[in-house]
Formats: sequence, structure tokens, C-alpha cells
Amino acid sequence: MAQLALVRHGQSQWNLEDRFTGWWDVDLTPAGEAEARASGRLLKASGVAFRRAYASVQTRAIRTLHLALEEMGMLWLPVVKDWRLNERHYGGLTGLNKTETAARHGAAQVKIWRRSYDTPPPDLTPGSEFDLAADPRYAGVDIPRAESLKLTLERVLPYWRSEIAPKLLAGENILVAAHGNSLRAIVKHLFAVPDAAIVEVEIPTGNPLLIELDARLRPTAARYLNPDRARPLPALGPAG
Amino acid sequence: MAQLALVRHGQSQWNLEDRFTGWWDVDLTPAGEAEARASGRLLKASGVAFRRAYASVQTRAIRTLHLALEEMGMLWLPVVKDWRLNERHYGGLTGLNKTETAARHGAAQVKIWRRSYDTPPPDLTPGSEFDLAADPRYAGVDIPRAESLKLTLERVLPYWRSEIAPKLLAGENILVAAHGNSLRAIVKHLFAVPDAAIVEVEIPTGNPLLIELDARLRPTAARYLNPDRARPLPALGPAG
Repeated sequence: MAQLALVRHGQSQWNLEDRFTGWWDVDLTPAGEAEARASGRLLKASGVAFRRAYASVQTRAIRTLHLALEEMGMLWLPVVKDWRLNERHYGGLTGLNKTETAARHGAAQVKIWRRSYDTPPPDLTPGSEFDLAADPRYAGVDIPRAESLKLTLERVLPYWRSEIAPKLLAGENILVAAHGNSLRAIVKHLFAVPDAAIVEVEIPTGNPLLIELDARLRPTAARYLNPDRARPLPALGPAG
Repeated sequence: MAQLALVRHGQSQWNLEDRFTGWWDVDLTPAGEAEARASGRLLKASGVAFRRAYASVQTRAIRTLHLALEEMGMLWLPVVKDWRLNERHYGGLTGLNKTETAARHGAAQVKIWRRSYDTPPPDLTPGSEFDLAADPRYAGVDIPRAESLKLTLERVLPYWRSEIAPKLLAGENILVAAHGNSLRAIVKHLFAVPDAAIVEVEIPTGNPLLIELDARLRPTAARYLNPDRARPLPALGPAG
């Protein structure tokens, strides 16, 4: 019926510095730009005729999409940007280096915050340097103070259902450029991945995941466009 | 009430080669990219809080917009792309070098094609190398075979009225990144420039024109953001 490509943004400046980023708006590094262009060349070579693209409102995902579309010769594609495709909000961990955080809170606690499905990190302190309340892109948005992966899903999926799924059901091939955790939310939903297993699913950067969907938006095939960098895929079809 | 910024794309590869471009999709040169970034810095310095942007479906205008938004730190802005903001279609002149065209058709004829308000150039031959019928971005569009400036206005203005004007009337500050002739169409409409005078109006590249509009979308002020490169502006208010 329709094809869906999920593109995860490449290296950002804070990926490089190993800092919790979340909703903070950090740009791609030159390596991240190269990953975005590589994604675009793979998408072009796939031959899929995309008709619409989505991105978060974060610079690193938008620039990934723009660089990919440039490589595809498809900058003219309609693009919709929405905060509900943003990365998971890392709350009070935003800006912290991951090693420092482990030293401060203990490695076991940090592992829970990073890998648990439903334990959110500590809240962001209102008025802190990473408070986004004054950012005009979030005017009218009830900005979360911190999100678990579960909370991330709970704002990604309503958007998926109301905006993206109808376009796929209408037969449009769709490209989504977003983040590790907002893409996990979509994969968890489509492949019915159990809560405990979803943190193990990781879409690689620079390697789009192309999913074929049937008329009820069930995956009938899925593959990474660069097979040399493939990672394990969730099982096709709703899990038992 | 609302502010409107008109941004003309900078140098493209065919500007550099002095060829008629029209709807043919040619990318910016490095100099054109620098003009786009300069526009973005001027727009940022203006302090205007833009809420939406528009572009044609042509790469040189879209990349101008993206580079400007990048400089403004506003890549998250909603962007709508539409073919009705495309450059004037140069028909059978598309791809020809302007000097060669003058040698072939005579300088007087070329001047008429370039400067007359309502004389279109010769039609593009269907099936020629510049025929865009198979380009997916124009699926469902009745692609013109050639356009005078008058014909260009006749497809820009319905879009202006149906899509852009309502947003300005709602108080949104709007950015439009487009082409010499599609921007002329908007300026002719807003400033009620007579047919015979509009070809003399030329928005410079790399220098956005910022227009303040009242509650009935009549210009109450207008200025180029780089005053050192200002050109004559049309008179404010509807012409007599």
C-alpha cells in the first residue's frame, strides 16, 4: 500500500560531547551533515516516490531532512514540522555530560533513566538555562518537564494517528526525519514491540529504515537501506 | 498590523551563465548561498517575529529560504511551498544564453520579451529537453508553455489572495522567498504599480524588502533591510 522511511538525525554537537540533549536545540556536526547526505543518497537509490515529509521542530532533525532532500533532488516535497516528533525531553539531565551524571547520581540510576520504559528523569527546574518557555516555537505548547520513553510515546502516537497515518492510508509514501526516541515510539506502535524490548531497538543514524505497510498499516516488509550497517529489526506483524 | 518580507533568491548557476531559466530547476552558486545567508542575517537583525514562510517549489528559492532561516535560528518556522510562487516561465527561451538569443532573434525582440508587461516569449516545445511534464512536483499542474509578466501575476495573485493574505490579516508576520517576477507580481498588487512601470521595479538579491501593512493590507512603510544596497521603492499607497 504505502512506504514509510524513518530517518534518524546524525551526530549533533552534544552527541559528540556525550551530553543529554532532549529538547535542547543543538545543530549537527560536519559528521552529522555527512550522515544526513548519506541517508539522502540511500533514499534516492531506493527509488521510492515520496510524497510528503515530516520532521520535529528541532534543528538537527530539520537539517537532516533538508540535506537528505537536497541529495534526493526533492527539496520541493511538502514538509510538516511538529513538536510532537521531538526527541524525548531529558528534564533535569539536559545539558549534563553522561559520565558526570553517572558520577553524581550513580551508574545504576543513570541506567534506569536511560533504559527504563516508564521512569522519567528528574524534572527540569523552571527558569533554568535550559527552560524553553520563552522559545517562540513552543508558543501554546505545554512543554513537558521531563519524559520517560512511555511519555514520549503518549505524545508521538496521537500525532501519528491524526496526521501521518491518514496520509499513508491515502497511499502517500512518507519520510519522517526525527530522533532516536520519537522514532522508537513509531516502531513500537507499528511492530507492537513489548515495553521491555523497545529500548533495545535502535535505528542507526545515516541509515534509513524503509517499512512497507499494508492497507491497515501493518508492516509487511522492513529493511535498512544500507545493509552493511543493518541492526536487528523488530519481528514483522503484531507481536503475540 | 502585519509585516511582510520579500526575499529574492541570489545568484544561480544560470544567472552566472546568463541563461533564461524560468521554471528550470537550477541551484544556487556559492555566491547565491552567501546572498541567502546575508538575507537571513538582515532579517534576524530586523527583530521581526516571523510566524510563517512561503517559497516556490524551485530549489534556488527553497535553499535561499532554508539558508536564511538557518542564519535566523528559525528553521522550525512553518514553510509552505507552492508552484504559484515560481519564476515566470520563459517558454522556448528556457536554457538559451541571453547574448545568443539576441543574436538569433534580434536585440529589439529580446528586449520586448524581457521588458514588456504582456508579451509572452515563444512557447516551449512539448517534449523538448526543458519540458517539465514528467516532473513529479508538477503532478496535476497545468504547466504553462510560456508566461508574460501579466500571466505570471495571474497565477501568483490568486495564491496570494487565498493563502498568504488571510495569514497577514490574522496578524502573522510572513516571509516569502521567491523570484524576480513572482515577487514583482506581489509588489505590483500591493503598491498598485501601473503595468508600464512594474518592469522597472527590481527587488535586489540578498536584500529583503520589509513592508508594513495595515489592517486592509495597504503598505504603510517599506524599506530594504540593507540601506546601502537600496533601490527605488514604489510609491506607498494605491497609485492614482
